[in-house]
Amino acid sequence: MPTYKAPVEDFKFLFHEFLQIDKRTDLPGFEDLTPDMTTAILEGGAKFCEEVLQPLNQVGDEEGCVLENGVVRTPKGFKEAFQQYCEAGWNRLGAPEEFGGAGLPSVITFAFSEIGSSANQAFTMYPGLTNAAYSALAATGEPWMKEHIVPKMVSGEWCGTMCLTEPHCGTDLKLMKTKAELQEDGTYKMNGTKIFISGGDHDMTDNIIHMVIAKIPDEEGKLHNDLSTVNFFMVPKFIVDPETGEMTKRNGVSVGSIEKKMGIKGSATCVMNFDDAVAYKLGGAPQKKSAEGGEKKKSKSAGMAGMFGMMNGARMGVGIQGIAVGEVAVQNGAAYALERTAGRALTGAKNPDASADPIIVFPDVRRLLLSSRSFVEGARALAMWVSMLFSVQQHSPDEKEREEASDLAQLLTPVIKAYFTDKGFEAANNSMQVFGGHGYVRDHGMEQFVRDARINQVYEGANGIQALDLVARKMSMKGGRALMTYFGKIEAFIKENEGNDKMKPFIEPLKTGYERMTKGATWLMENAPKNYDNAGSASYEMLNIFGVVTLGWMWAQMAKLAQEKLEAGEGNAEFYKRKLVLAKYWLEREVPNTAAYLERLQMGADTLMELDEDAFVA
Amino acid sequence: MPTYKAPVEDFKFLFHEFLQIDKRTDLPGFEDLTPDMTTAILEGGAKFCEEVLQPLNQVGDEEGCVLENGVVRTPKGFKEAFQQYCEAGWNRLGAPEEFGGAGLPSVITFAFSEIGSSANQAFTMYPGLTNAAYSALAATGEPWMKEHIVPKMVSGEWCGTMCLTEPHCGTDLKLMKTKAELQEDGTYKMNGTKIFISGGDHDMTDNIIHMVIAKIPDEEGKLHNDLSTVNFFMVPKFIVDPETGEMTKRNGVSVGSIEKKMGIKGSATCVMNFDDAVAYKLGGAPQKKSAEGGEKKKSKSAGMAGMFGMMNGARMGVGIQGIAVGEVAVQNGAAYALERTAGRALTGAKNPDASADPIIVFPDVRRLLLSSRSFVEGARALAMWVSMLFSVQQHSPDEKEREEASDLAQLLTPVIKAYFTDKGFEAANNSMQVFGGHGYVRDHGMEQFVRDARINQVYEGANGIQALDLVARKMSMKGGRALMTYFGKIEAFIKENEGNDKMKPFIEPLKTGYERMTKGATWLMENAPKNYDNAGSASYEMLNIFGVVTLGWMWAQMAKLAQEKLEAGEGNAEFYKRKLVLAKYWLEREVPNTAAYLERLQMGADTLMELDEDAFVA
Repeated sequence: MPTYKAPVEDFKFLFHEFLQIDKRTDLPGFEDLTPDMTTAILEGGAKFCEEVLQPLNQVGDEEGCVLENGVVRTPKGFKEAFQQYCEAGWNRLGAPEEFGGAGLPSVITFAFSEIGSSANQAFTMYPGLTNAAYSALAATGEPWMKEHIVPKMVSGEWCGTMCLTEPHCGTDLKLMKTKAELQEDGTYKMNGTKIFISGGDHDMTDNIIHMVIAKIPDEEGKLHNDLSTVNFFMVPKFIVDPETGEMTKRNGVSVGSIEKKMGIKGSATCVMNFDDAVAYKLGGAPQKKSAEGGEKKKSKSAGMAGMFGMMNGARMGVGIQGIAVGEVAVQNGAAYALERTAGRALTGAKNPDASADPIIVFPDVRRLLLSSRSFVEGARALAMWVSMLFSVQQHSPDEKEREEASDLAQLLTPVIKAYFTDKGFEAANNSMQVFGGHGYVRDHGMEQFVRDARINQVYEGANGIQALDLVARKMSMKGGRALMTYFGKIEAFIKENEGNDKMKPFIEPLKTGYERMTKGATWLMENAPKNYDNAGSASYEMLNIFGVVTLGWMWAQMAKLAQEKLEAGEGNAEFYKRKLVLAKYWLEREVPNTAAYLERLQMGADTLMELDEDAFVA
Repeated sequence: MPTYKAPVEDFKFLFHEFLQIDKRTDLPGFEDLTPDMTTAILEGGAKFCEEVLQPLNQVGDEEGCVLENGVVRTPKGFKEAFQQYCEAGWNRLGAPEEFGGAGLPSVITFAFSEIGSSANQAFTMYPGLTNAAYSALAATGEPWMKEHIVPKMVSGEWCGTMCLTEPHCGTDLKLMKTKAELQEDGTYKMNGTKIFISGGDHDMTDNIIHMVIAKIPDEEGKLHNDLSTVNFFMVPKFIVDPETGEMTKRNGVSVGSIEKKMGIKGSATCVMNFDDAVAYKLGGAPQKKSAEGGEKKKSKSAGMAGMFGMMNGARMGVGIQGIAVGEVAVQNGAAYALERTAGRALTGAKNPDASADPIIVFPDVRRLLLSSRSFVEGARALAMWVSMLFSVQQHSPDEKEREEASDLAQLLTPVIKAYFTDKGFEAANNSMQVFGGHGYVRDHGMEQFVRDARINQVYEGANGIQALDLVARKMSMKGGRALMTYFGKIEAFIKENEGNDKMKPFIEPLKTGYERMTKGATWLMENAPKNYDNAGSASYEMLNIFGVVTLGWMWAQMAKLAQEKLEAGEGNAEFYKRKLVLAKYWLEREVPNTAAYLERLQMGADTLMELDEDAFVA
């Protein structure tokens, strides 16, 4: 059975040394975040996840969810664990105090979500989506929803979902067929089918609040292939009385079936049918009936903006799931490498009294572990920094700082989503590989990590979509302002530390990677306008360069900090020495990949586009 | 449901144009291999695999194997399919005619094994291991075994297994605990436990012949940590009368349990218990009892040589499983990319009358497919060339040619095993990624390809072991003779075609890759002797360079051939044009990876070895 120990020390390092969050008392929620406070939260969260959620991870996978008489039954223990979760207050960690939340900032909630996801990714999807749903509802809902519904979701009395995908359409919302027709009373009548709805139904709470996107038809009831007709709605499983907040009758939304999946089997993935369901449009007054449905409107509705806001937070959350699965997998891979014996160290027996050495003596086993470990801790630093930017962009008193934080967070969100989930999958595979044949057997739990990790590359926008978002939108947004800010920061760091001999092993490869990144960006600027397919063909390479270099920058900063602490004789020397090795590993052995990414990026789209479609199935 | 169409045209191209096997009438088994004959075999094999085996692939995964009353029950339809398989003669394709086989050479048997494995990897493991077992028994067994047992395995009346791994030891045979004690009658009494035994028990045949390695104890019955005491045995499930060949009583070998695994669920992976089982030592007379058990003997026994021979064939077979799963996965990924619509081509709608374009218009979707497709067809060319070398090394009348073939086959076997299975896994993942969320759902069968493909990186020696075999043994064997032969061949090809302008797009990147390969080899020669950990740390990078460059060389040769055919106006022009694009893809977009591999290789082992063991679990 796999084990898990939450990386509390690493979070404390990131919070109080790397990010120095306790200095940001100008931001709401940060006033009380002293080391004592964060330690208490982290240790409490760690204990809960290690003791309650992690033991249910394999059970959840074995048992999965079952659809019985139209209701989803979650795996044994999930319901009780969810009650405990909410009672202990983990569900409301980040919710605003006005809704009964603890009002803690993203650094805390994302840290906790990593720990929860390491312990049991399938379980944490129920509260995770509930959080996304209540945040969107708090942002876009009517006052009665904020009064009666949001607090119940915050407390965990009710759950929530996001209903976006339909059988024939995921990313391309224009193709949507779910229809919401305005009724006399101002509500909408919704009909259609949504698929891949995580937690679409379950037995953990009485009511479930669905956040749904659907199209409003024109006067004749016709749907148009037009994004501006897509709107954002709330559809409760049981209709809620707007006056009292009581659950009343069952709404016309039901689960049609649940998917048999590769992994995250404890999370119910539902096909949801909307049959004349009562739906409430979000983000302002009901749209006036008009015959202009077919025309393009330029501005997104406030509701849709809320939906996209929800998606952005979700993307960050999925990126963190990549870290989470990497962390738990490499913990188990490392433990096995210390325990399993086979052969002898290449330089001579390390353990001559035993019949063989532990396999950790082999450089290639170390490669599997260090590549995963240096990803996990570098990615965690980036995730926490961007979480911090989320708070800054919302609450900083300094407009310039807010703007910069928003730019950087937007630029890096697709990188975090795609690169972290690719590397998280790789880390899970690497750690499974350490187990040899034993990794392929279910008992050890390693192959579950691989299966669970695989979804992260797919949901909330498949990783290829993230890459396109990066090159086609984010890099050029506001005339490239975000990109210039980002480049400027890395360049400044390099300049600042170039003269420092001790920083040489970190700065030199970082500089190499950075130069390749700017070359890639320049190539794109020159070649994408000539042929947009060049943006598409370069997108994944560019995203990977961003991933490697940004983590390299994080590592170089952590290395600097570690050196300072060691020189000052402060703190746990072993901790900092270990960070220095991991930093060196990343910069020595991951930055070389940027050479390949850049060479490939510069090849352009021609060969990719040359083959006729039919030749792909020849 | 996934579909599969065997790549018959590609095999015909490789056989008759690329390898020109019909010119090798000097080799046994090749006399009748005219295009008509190979077409008949390939089409017959394709039909059988497409119509009988492929439809059982998802059933096998859903149902898996069950252990009931001490006997393994295979999934519904497997037993009947196995009967049909043997009746049609597919089991005996490559067996020598003296044992009832068809005596066909490796190019044919490996081609057929790819097709079978694409259709149903789990199923083909039963005949695959039976073939490995009967080949080893034919090579090392006593005359009565060749008379009575081998022919029954060739016909498929009985099956066979390979029993190597024990719970605490895989690669490191010295640690083995299974004991075989010499009896008065010349047989051995075997006690111990073997794990991960594919087809260790099943309901498809009456008898199963286990090929087992075990240790012979010293006079006092003690086992020694000494490779020379490890020997190779035959242990039948039912004892066979040496006179009549009849099955007699049940032997002391039984299945203890079967593993729940990530994939290949239709293949029974058994824990086998040997309890005073009657075992027959292979490869010569029973070892004389002696008290010298503890001493090292330098030479491997003939039996063990037979075992290692079996392993080498098996490694090639596993590499081909990597191609096989890549082929079927990319076929389905491509079909989906042509069918699924979303968004618009980046350069403007390709299909303006429909509501969206098929996703094959996107460069990044093409990247996923072309990277897989160019791997599959490049790897197939290499696999068929090396299969050809297998025949040449055994049967060529020219000693020099035999020697060279043997050198090259030995050098490339670990590359084929490890690189092909890594890329096969990647191809399965790429093709699953094309499906977005739908790929994660079991119905579509894409995630099964990923789960099935994952075993290939693990069994028959985990891929890290293959990399070590390449750098620590194969590259330096016979004073580097194999390596020099291999380098010489690529260099000659480059020189020969450098002046040809039309070959420039292929030769230039090949040259770049080749130069990086020789730099890697030189670095190893200089640095490994100083510190053997440098060999370990460089091993995976070196193996990957070998993989990329060797496939690049295959592609460059195929491109040359395709250009010649196009110029001559011979054959199907579309086929050759498609090959040219795939060749360009590989050389443009895979060779860049060698830049990263080389940079990393040259970093050496220091950072990898720096961290204390305990810091891995900190």
